[in-house]
Amino acid sequence: MSVDLATIPSSREQCLALDAADPLAAFRAEYTLPANGTYLDGNSLGVLPVRTPEVVRRTVEEEWGKDLITSWNKHSWIDLPYRLGDRIAPLVGAGAGEVVVCDSVSVNLFKLLTAALRLRPGRRTVLGERDSFPTDLYIAEGVTGLFEGGRSVLLPSVDDLDAHLDDDVAVVVLSQVDYRTGRLLDMAAITAKVHRAGALMIWDLCHSAGALPIDLTACEVDFAVGCTYKYLNAGPCAPGFLYAAARHHDTVEQPLTGWFSHAAPFAFESDYRPTQGIGRFLTSFPSLLALAGLRATLEIWDRVDLELVRAKSLALTGLFIEQCRADGLEVVTPGQPELRGSQVAVRHPEAFPVVQALIERGVIGDFRAPDLMRFGFTPLYLSYTEVWDAAQALREVLASGEWRAERFSVRGAVT
Amino acid sequence: MSVDLATIPSSREQCLALDAADPLAAFRAEYTLPANGTYLDGNSLGVLPVRTPEVVRRTVEEEWGKDLITSWNKHSWIDLPYRLGDRIAPLVGAGAGEVVVCDSVSVNLFKLLTAALRLRPGRRTVLGERDSFPTDLYIAEGVTGLFEGGRSVLLPSVDDLDAHLDDDVAVVVLSQVDYRTGRLLDMAAITAKVHRAGALMIWDLCHSAGALPIDLTACEVDFAVGCTYKYLNAGPCAPGFLYAAARHHDTVEQPLTGWFSHAAPFAFESDYRPTQGIGRFLTSFPSLLALAGLRATLEIWDRVDLELVRAKSLALTGLFIEQCRADGLEVVTPGQPELRGSQVAVRHPEAFPVVQALIERGVIGDFRAPDLMRFGFTPLYLSYTEVWDAAQALREVLASGEWRAERFSVRGAVT
Repeated sequence: MSVDLATIPSSREQCLALDAADPLAAFRAEYTLPANGTYLDGNSLGVLPVRTPEVVRRTVEEEWGKDLITSWNKHSWIDLPYRLGDRIAPLVGAGAGEVVVCDSVSVNLFKLLTAALRLRPGRRTVLGERDSFPTDLYIAEGVTGLFEGGRSVLLPSVDDLDAHLDDDVAVVVLSQVDYRTGRLLDMAAITAKVHRAGALMIWDLCHSAGALPIDLTACEVDFAVGCTYKYLNAGPCAPGFLYAAARHHDTVEQPLTGWFSHAAPFAFESDYRPTQGIGRFLTSFPSLLALAGLRATLEIWDRVDLELVRAKSLALTGLFIEQCRADGLEVVTPGQPELRGSQVAVRHPEAFPVVQALIERGVIGDFRAPDLMRFGFTPLYLSYTEVWDAAQALREVLASGEWRAERFSVRGAVT
Repeated sequence: MSVDLATIPSSREQCLALDAADPLAAFRAEYTLPANGTYLDGNSLGVLPVRTPEVVRRTVEEEWGKDLITSWNKHSWIDLPYRLGDRIAPLVGAGAGEVVVCDSVSVNLFKLLTAALRLRPGRRTVLGERDSFPTDLYIAEGVTGLFEGGRSVLLPSVDDLDAHLDDDVAVVVLSQVDYRTGRLLDMAAITAKVHRAGALMIWDLCHSAGALPIDLTACEVDFAVGCTYKYLNAGPCAPGFLYAAARHHDTVEQPLTGWFSHAAPFAFESDYRPTQGIGRFLTSFPSLLALAGLRATLEIWDRVDLELVRAKSLALTGLFIEQCRADGLEVVTPGQPELRGSQVAVRHPEAFPVVQALIERGVIGDFRAPDLMRFGFTPLYLSYTEVWDAAQALREVLASGEWRAERFSVRGAVT
């Protein structure tokens, strides 16, 4: 059978053939996968790379345990936020010195929103989208509360952007991929539109970094934030990354002016002087144990071709969407390839117990209130065949009604 | 020989006797110590507890690797910032629900300073001390820059507090123990004085938490920040902790309003509603790998009597100070026990190469520009005898002039 990697498979046989020809197949051995399961939640928490425990162990036992404070120089701890940022840069189309690893998405967004409002004096509105991941909206509220007349305006949908892009808008913040629906926005077109209105653009890359090729430079994006614990597999709640276009480096002022953003942190001066470049977005230093997880996973990402990831991602999501639609399920994720990321959301009134029944069968997705089943597709460690089988499992769970069992309705603190 | 634990030993024999009678001696086996050295830098980076690698391994391989997202419920990840905060609380004299683990000292101080300025409308001054650890001063600059008329005023010394405590002062932030000199401030008296002036008090506990008993409740402290990677041994750049007195919980507003400070983070609401209690100081979630280091070390701290730690600390620092003074060295740290923390600073014009020569002999202290040698004393893993021997090593390095060797003048990125 000849294999076209751009084809969406419509049979298990086709899936087996695609797996046999998969140029990314070798990456699967890099990951620790559930013994009897298919993990479709890499968009929430990426799985553990096989190499990570040893990198963490070395960091704990050798660097911390044996070399102690000498590790700042001996193991170049001091440069890690920059060096790891430079390794993330090619994954998001940034240049060297434009990405730094620090803090969390929320804290980094706080810095960027404040910096953006200061770069547009006289403008006082931060524009977001009501359906964005809530922490972005909450942080926008927190930041605008610090500016006289500041306000955070939430669009009902990104499609309403034109109507709200007036001359009070200092900055627009949007997620490139919607965390619930998986909808992918047109970064180039939206950024250009925002710039024409005189505002700055911040992209949240949490659900796109590592899931598809991104070109922040070509899109002339001003700022971006992203996490490393979803598609990038750096570990639960691993540090975030922050992008700032080089053209802004000399003029930005962010308020979280911790000592690692100082021009000479080890001179211990009493007065603040920001360093040059992306370093002025640092605050304090990330946990070295947390950074170990990022160091380990980037050894894999250094070798990944994101165009291949994107092609396989579209095939996997396309396959899943087609199978769901064939059963009459309501797929919330756009069918057009250019409009979706690497996840699929299915609406069902009993989404919660259905997801639990699927998990019992070894197909691990997640639930988002009130009625969405959400499935993430990670081309480096999923095969076409298991995605096919996962779609069949969903079919069987619904057809059998097994999700009605009482045990599937029990909710934990985190749903 | 009879042993008085309050005595400062003046001979090696006395040290041996004190070690034999040391009620904290058993803790030493809990720590991984340099094979042929004496680590006097636990005030910068605490050593690795023996139990930590296994706790980290379990977190990485079992919780992340095997249980993945189910760990949020199965291993109660979701409550960790609160549960770990409640275990730190007795170490600082706080009540249950008054301490939370999150972010870094710098980020937490930013939250508290902003909250304090909002609690004192009409007042616009943040008062600090010029010799405080710089990140506190830089953050105070960053925060006051966000308030109309806000200003950060640095006292030449805490002894000048009275002269500057006017009715524009909203909040005073001070380190309980000076990071360079080791001077310990009177928390009760200063807090009371600040309150009489109508201002709020924030203490930085980085150099005191785990080094001596602290009673935030008795001192009626409003807010505090601290780190966990020095005397608490949670690992390099481990997460910080934040204390807020319960009486402020209902009225504080901090601006880093990430989703974990929301009343219902997993309801994914678009509008911000702060949770009740200490949780409103959360922003995002700390790295689970970083938290593993804290979980491990708190298993030790749960069993520690801080009064015993303080008694031994005063004996160790007293011994070191007396030996240095006997050689005519300039000891910067106060001689009176009630005025010093658990570290000793010695001024010497050639402090940098002298510290390097000491390190080559296995006595690991550190250098603080321009002319200080700094030595930290951690009673849980240091013996009286090795501190005695360390003082002798310093004596020999200076007497021999061996520090003049060229190799001791080479500086790394971090000094």
